[in-house]
Amino acid sequence: MNLDRIRKKSLHSKICSAEEAAMLIKDGMVLGISGFTKFGDARAVPRALVKRAQNGEKIAVTLMTGASIGSNLDEDLGDTGVIARRGPYQGSEKLRGHINRGEVMYLDQHLSHTGEYMRFGHMPKADVAIIDATCIDENGGIVCTTSVGNNALYALTAEKVIVEVNETHSPDMFGLHDIYVPETRPGRKPIPLVNPWDKIGVPVIPVNPEKIAAIVVHQLPDEAVSLVPGDAETDAIAGHLIEFLKHEVKKGRLTNALLPLQSGVGAVANAVLRGFEDSPFTGLSMFTEVAQDTVLDLLDSGRMKVVSTAALSLTEKYRSRLKDVKKLHGKLILRPQDVSNNPELIRRLGVIACNTALEYDIYGNVNSTHVLGSKMMNGIGGSGDFARNALYTCFVTKSYARGGALSSVVPMVTHHDHTEHDVDILITERGLADLRGLAPRERVRVIIDNTAHPDYREALRDYAKEAFAAGGHTPHILAQAFSFHTRFAATGSMLPQPAPQA
Amino acid sequence: MNLDRIRKKSLHSKICSAEEAAMLIKDGMVLGISGFTKFGDARAVPRALVKRAQNGEKIAVTLMTGASIGSNLDEDLGDTGVIARRGPYQGSEKLRGHINRGEVMYLDQHLSHTGEYMRFGHMPKADVAIIDATCIDENGGIVCTTSVGNNALYALTAEKVIVEVNETHSPDMFGLHDIYVPETRPGRKPIPLVNPWDKIGVPVIPVNPEKIAAIVVHQLPDEAVSLVPGDAETDAIAGHLIEFLKHEVKKGRLTNALLPLQSGVGAVANAVLRGFEDSPFTGLSMFTEVAQDTVLDLLDSGRMKVVSTAALSLTEKYRSRLKDVKKLHGKLILRPQDVSNNPELIRRLGVIACNTALEYDIYGNVNSTHVLGSKMMNGIGGSGDFARNALYTCFVTKSYARGGALSSVVPMVTHHDHTEHDVDILITERGLADLRGLAPRERVRVIIDNTAHPDYREALRDYAKEAFAAGGHTPHILAQAFSFHTRFAATGSMLPQPAPQA
Repeated sequence: MNLDRIRKKSLHSKICSAEEAAMLIKDGMVLGISGFTKFGDARAVPRALVKRAQNGEKIAVTLMTGASIGSNLDEDLGDTGVIARRGPYQGSEKLRGHINRGEVMYLDQHLSHTGEYMRFGHMPKADVAIIDATCIDENGGIVCTTSVGNNALYALTAEKVIVEVNETHSPDMFGLHDIYVPETRPGRKPIPLVNPWDKIGVPVIPVNPEKIAAIVVHQLPDEAVSLVPGDAETDAIAGHLIEFLKHEVKKGRLTNALLPLQSGVGAVANAVLRGFEDSPFTGLSMFTEVAQDTVLDLLDSGRMKVVSTAALSLTEKYRSRLKDVKKLHGKLILRPQDVSNNPELIRRLGVIACNTALEYDIYGNVNSTHVLGSKMMNGIGGSGDFARNALYTCFVTKSYARGGALSSVVPMVTHHDHTEHDVDILITERGLADLRGLAPRERVRVIIDNTAHPDYREALRDYAKEAFAAGGHTPHILAQAFSFHTRFAATGSMLPQPAPQA
Repeated sequence: MNLDRIRKKSLHSKICSAEEAAMLIKDGMVLGISGFTKFGDARAVPRALVKRAQNGEKIAVTLMTGASIGSNLDEDLGDTGVIARRGPYQGSEKLRGHINRGEVMYLDQHLSHTGEYMRFGHMPKADVAIIDATCIDENGGIVCTTSVGNNALYALTAEKVIVEVNETHSPDMFGLHDIYVPETRPGRKPIPLVNPWDKIGVPVIPVNPEKIAAIVVHQLPDEAVSLVPGDAETDAIAGHLIEFLKHEVKKGRLTNALLPLQSGVGAVANAVLRGFEDSPFTGLSMFTEVAQDTVLDLLDSGRMKVVSTAALSLTEKYRSRLKDVKKLHGKLILRPQDVSNNPELIRRLGVIACNTALEYDIYGNVNSTHVLGSKMMNGIGGSGDFARNALYTCFVTKSYARGGALSSVVPMVTHHDHTEHDVDILITERGLADLRGLAPRERVRVIIDNTAHPDYREALRDYAKEAFAAGGHTPHILAQAFSFHTRFAATGSMLPQPAPQA
């Protein structure tokens, strides 16, 4: 064991095994742990909790993170009953099952809300924080790893802190993080960030070393994420976005440096960013919550000059680039989600936000989370923080799913994460709908004609025609608003005349 | 005519009749006019437009305001076809009819969005601004009246400005207004407001006097608003809110000065504020978009020390108090809605927001605007700006309407203005539902048991029970989600077994 990573010598006595550290955690506690878009998650101690549960111990906790965690942790913690409550985001297919069966209570929060709520007392504070660290400095300050997320929140407010010193991270990570904690109220001052590249905090989490109850040293690497590669349709989506932004430059609203970009998590988002590689845009910046593979390429090529984010989230090939993390200094800033997702900053900077929709409706309302209105997919994550405060709020999706059995454009979405008030631009492989300045009735034609799959256009137009005739500012026929969805549930397809079953 | 009110002498030559000034306005133009919650609206020149239309001239414009306008302007401009497009808010029963018949295209916007969108170019700028003024200073700067709203936006960005010097307003209004305009991007700096009472701008709209194309002097007063008086049920709502806030003080989250309050427009909102008169809270402040009657009483009694707002909106009795407006200096600050409704400031200050719901559902989603999903009532106004960024987001309503034929609590709202992610507290005369930290399934019981009308509780529980059995994180039965509403449309009541028709 290399004690160089624990520079405050008085803390050496706290070094213990994951199993020993896990004994600090009792049934019924609130845990606040590292992890955002699967990177930089605390993993050694949670694994020990899984083992305790597998050995028959009853231990059920409220598990709070930054966002999704990797290493199959949500799967195993969920399956063994360790997770009674979970927030503010998860991205696990198995945990989702527990949530949708009502076995796990899920607090699906805007990622900017968790810190506000917990510090203020709207939610209980963590009893124990478990923080993934590169090292601990001379004063006990924690140097984060590949995500910051809610690390500062949990480390600074929890009763006790367990630090997982993760030796797979280069010590050169030091200096990438900018830890800033919003002040209490009344009297909270403006957050002094004016550009995505501004540093406003300190490089470590300045935790009181007396709160550090255990230190676990391990060599478990970030689990590389897998991303479905882009295809002709995601290329088309990217193309429509780039053409739109070129149009905005032509109109004089933007320069070729655009304004700070935000991009959601996942394969489509990553593929859409690819479109910037061959674009006329240079001197780009991002003010975002996650940086996926393409971001590293854009930084490498010099097309993008800086990325401000709460986390990295990389596939195997790109993760290995972090061995030479020095190259990223000055280009990459990792921030708490209190900062990356803060409405104050998103509005001030004029962010161009691009997130993925599950479905949207003919008036521009967006469902990001719920399948057929009831079943949670992942969670709203930061999409609401950005959609509600960005200068350009764009949502992207393919126009169909399940081989055409599902239309992404529906009469009324079955769950509303983002209302028509907040949505400017909708993009599918078919085209782009620019909703700016349009009344609801005017949006319908643009959305259907430009973005719906041709197989569904007639049915959507029929619905709108009947609704318009019945009247209203946002005309709906309530008895038919979910007819696409109930048809899918009954026949396996939203199409009016489903193809014969194979 | 008292020329003292137009202190820049070179502008005296611009004085003309309302009819002459109105000739600056052509068919197809965008007009940006004063007016917010009916007070401080431009009225002389719009009246002249009505006359032109009544005389057979085709003149149809896009009419943008701060929020609602008074003096029956929306009614008459709508009925004569002068309003082709309208934004960002209206509160007129007659104009609502035109909107719901699809005759007027209505841009129902978050009140903080209009300025951002128009300055940036997402929407066309005003060709002509018409600004209600107390006076014009030595440099041509415009002193506003009883509202600021979007006055600075329109006056500073329009091609031409018509000033309506309104002699019914006391010259002592000077100094009540704090005009601040958000900077352009990139490089926009923080808005330097830390307390509701901070002054960050200048007392006049610093318009280029060369843009002032006409000045109309008139003596048409603000039209007093009418408010339904409070009753036992609004008293009960106020009581639940006060009890809740006392509980928050007891828990140590708030002091007796609370945090800045926001209250929506209308009779219920005004009645709820009455509850503070006999409360233990002192040293109160408001950071809000409208100040109604009760606010003047709270200032008078000293219980409230300062109100920051975009507008006043008063009944006859309270309006007359403005004759002695000097008393309000130091206690009342009138601001642009770019400031009063800014997400940056609402989040920073930790506002306690209290707005009125039309209906809400068993998971906490709120409909503020649409009757039976299609028909616009007024508009979202600033409720979204506050709901999405406040520290406490509360919605109030009576638990029923139309003598019990409508339940305010429904299985699924027919229009989503505020999503379950943003709603903390729901209050009816029956009680208060505290949703903080609850998962959707947990909210159902609290909402039904504490706030629904007893006549509807069983039907709501039956729906939830069936939905829970079907599964999901937010369980719904899509085919029955709007059963309350379709039953009302069919039978005149949401009750499962409607009473015999009288």
